[in-house]
Amino acid sequence: MTQTLRLKKNADRRLKAGHLWLYSNEVDIEATPLKGLEPGAQVVVEAANGKAMGVAYVNPNSLICARVVSRDPNMRLDRSLLVHRFNQALALRQRLYAKPFYRLVHGEGDLLPGLVVDRFDDVVVVQLNTLGMERLAEEVVAALDKVLSPRVIVFKNDSSGRRQEQLERQVTVAKGELDGPVLMEENGVRFHVPVLDGQKTGWFFDHRANRAWLNGLVAGKRVLDVFSYIGGWGVQAAAHGAREVLCVDVSAQALERVAENAALNGLHEQVAVGEADAFEALAALKADGEQFDVVILDPPAFIKKRKDIPNGERAYGKLNREAMRLLGRDGLLLSASCSMHLAQERLVEVVRGAVRHQDRHGQIVYQGHQAEDHPVHPAIPETAYLKALGVRVFRD
Amino acid sequence: MTQTLRLKKNADRRLKAGHLWLYSNEVDIEATPLKGLEPGAQVVVEAANGKAMGVAYVNPNSLICARVVSRDPNMRLDRSLLVHRFNQALALRQRLYAKPFYRLVHGEGDLLPGLVVDRFDDVVVVQLNTLGMERLAEEVVAALDKVLSPRVIVFKNDSSGRRQEQLERQVTVAKGELDGPVLMEENGVRFHVPVLDGQKTGWFFDHRANRAWLNGLVAGKRVLDVFSYIGGWGVQAAAHGAREVLCVDVSAQALERVAENAALNGLHEQVAVGEADAFEALAALKADGEQFDVVILDPPAFIKKRKDIPNGERAYGKLNREAMRLLGRDGLLLSASCSMHLAQERLVEVVRGAVRHQDRHGQIVYQGHQAEDHPVHPAIPETAYLKALGVRVFRD
Repeated sequence: MTQTLRLKKNADRRLKAGHLWLYSNEVDIEATPLKGLEPGAQVVVEAANGKAMGVAYVNPNSLICARVVSRDPNMRLDRSLLVHRFNQALALRQRLYAKPFYRLVHGEGDLLPGLVVDRFDDVVVVQLNTLGMERLAEEVVAALDKVLSPRVIVFKNDSSGRRQEQLERQVTVAKGELDGPVLMEENGVRFHVPVLDGQKTGWFFDHRANRAWLNGLVAGKRVLDVFSYIGGWGVQAAAHGAREVLCVDVSAQALERVAENAALNGLHEQVAVGEADAFEALAALKADGEQFDVVILDPPAFIKKRKDIPNGERAYGKLNREAMRLLGRDGLLLSASCSMHLAQERLVEVVRGAVRHQDRHGQIVYQGHQAEDHPVHPAIPETAYLKALGVRVFRD
Repeated sequence: MTQTLRLKKNADRRLKAGHLWLYSNEVDIEATPLKGLEPGAQVVVEAANGKAMGVAYVNPNSLICARVVSRDPNMRLDRSLLVHRFNQALALRQRLYAKPFYRLVHGEGDLLPGLVVDRFDDVVVVQLNTLGMERLAEEVVAALDKVLSPRVIVFKNDSSGRRQEQLERQVTVAKGELDGPVLMEENGVRFHVPVLDGQKTGWFFDHRANRAWLNGLVAGKRVLDVFSYIGGWGVQAAAHGAREVLCVDVSAQALERVAENAALNGLHEQVAVGEADAFEALAALKADGEQFDVVILDPPAFIKKRKDIPNGERAYGKLNREAMRLLGRDGLLLSASCSMHLAQERLVEVVRGAVRHQDRHGQIVYQGHQAEDHPVHPAIPETAYLKALGVRVFRD
């Protein structure tokens, strides 16, 4: 018989609003001790009055102690429901994109808490970020097989979220074989993506639309791509006519990939690389009197937890100020943040501060977000994380 | 000699941050009585300590009693500076757009408080929304002539903002002659725009990018365009392959334009019109059992002042709920708001509530804003007003 998890009085409001998370302090532990629940098991969630509200998988050792997988208490997240949800997710992506390169499953945004699936044609990369999803690993593979029959399925289970769920971090190939990077295409530009040893699943699909926007504005320009990783922004800019692109990253391995990806598109002459810490690189470029028409700032999340907000905002501020100094009289700054804890208006404030600090004027001409294959759940603000501002910076 | 306007202590903080507005309660009226200033005149703004902070034009009778036109106290907003600013604004648009149809000047966002200029090739439509800008009407015409040499310049001075500035509302042709609608093109679709007797300047350029996004998703679909005005969304959807489009508006005149614009693009068979109040139309369509694949909600601002927020949010809620009822099993809602007082997260909340009310699931796949020719001033949140959410609405 399925176990139940009883909520405290009024603790059902978030769920009723559509959210999928339960926090451990919302559980009536006298009625249903969390410790009595099997980690990863699926349980029926009940309101304080005993009304069944849905099914969730639990992790008694996590702050988010349960994540709802269905509002129907008679359902279970099993192979059959996974197949259904994958088909639903696939239908959206096929409507949106002509080519099979996208995030197929974006966790809660696709009603599959803790699960990320990125698709590179016949290679799919899976992240199981919670204990409840880890328990379903075999079913996930079987359901992916049924829906997509991919040649290769990779478990890229090395996310920091797994640590909070007390899960091991490891990368395994669950189906097929893979001995190198995978070929993919974005906005008409080809890339070799290191899915086994790159960042996250190997590629950041979330900036697709933001890159497409910037691609339209770089022809003939000198472009600086800071935190370039394997060249998502920089190589695309070169492919769209940028006169000269400098990709800066702290990882020599990532920069090797930049060079490869530039060559793959016949752009090795336009794309240069520089191995350096971002802040040091910006200072050195300034000292050398270098100027750029376009500077791209796509840093890693400076704010991972709420308590990091003040320090993180200072870091974004410094970064944007230093980057702006490298722009000519009328330049374009692409300032991104993937920190969920940095609200859009705070990034605007970062840009405002940087513009004022340089005694320049700024026009925010573009406000971008995560691409369509990273759907935001309207009841879960945590599913919206990406911001990209396009800022014209000029002297009056 | 130029008059001065002295600020109270600490009342200079917003200006220092980059904002361009001064409120009457921030003025040290003992030192510089507002009543002593000539309405519309340009004055030097001083901090409490006497430091000159810039030049502003004043309106002693308006809540916003002064708007900064330059941070250099030695400058004046005259023909020469207008020409400079117009050239700056034009440079941005020419970088962004291949064709000469855009907002050329977006008020504060282009450092020209109170001035809007929309360009339809050789016809430009000007809105002077403040007394200070009204005083410069002749200079604006001369500067536009110098920068663009347009065939026609229209003053579409009938905005509600003029009432607050105690200005008359009237439409005049300041240069050339115009006896009918103007031809323009957006996202590859042609429109006849009624610049003399349409809404605002005749066309809403601000949704260009949002319409472009939706255009990619309507092929073969049945589309409902509520508050259609002259068919900006609906006719474009038909041009991008929508099977059938119904445009609903309360204005028979607007719907005549929809039919004309459909015919102009050879789409009269795909585009139908319905003259009705939006809420009544949604109810009638529901009663008739009609279903659509895509519903577009682009209502006028339901929230014009802060005190309208509660009522306005209720109206947005009702509208989104009623619209969602007309979607099939897996539909797309484009939900827009041009109310500056409705924050992005409140529109998300409206969508969340509507989805839950219908017991459906929602995925926000697109978060759109005003187009690039409506730049946001990073220090002036009031310059960011447009939101457009693309929401997949489905049953699990």
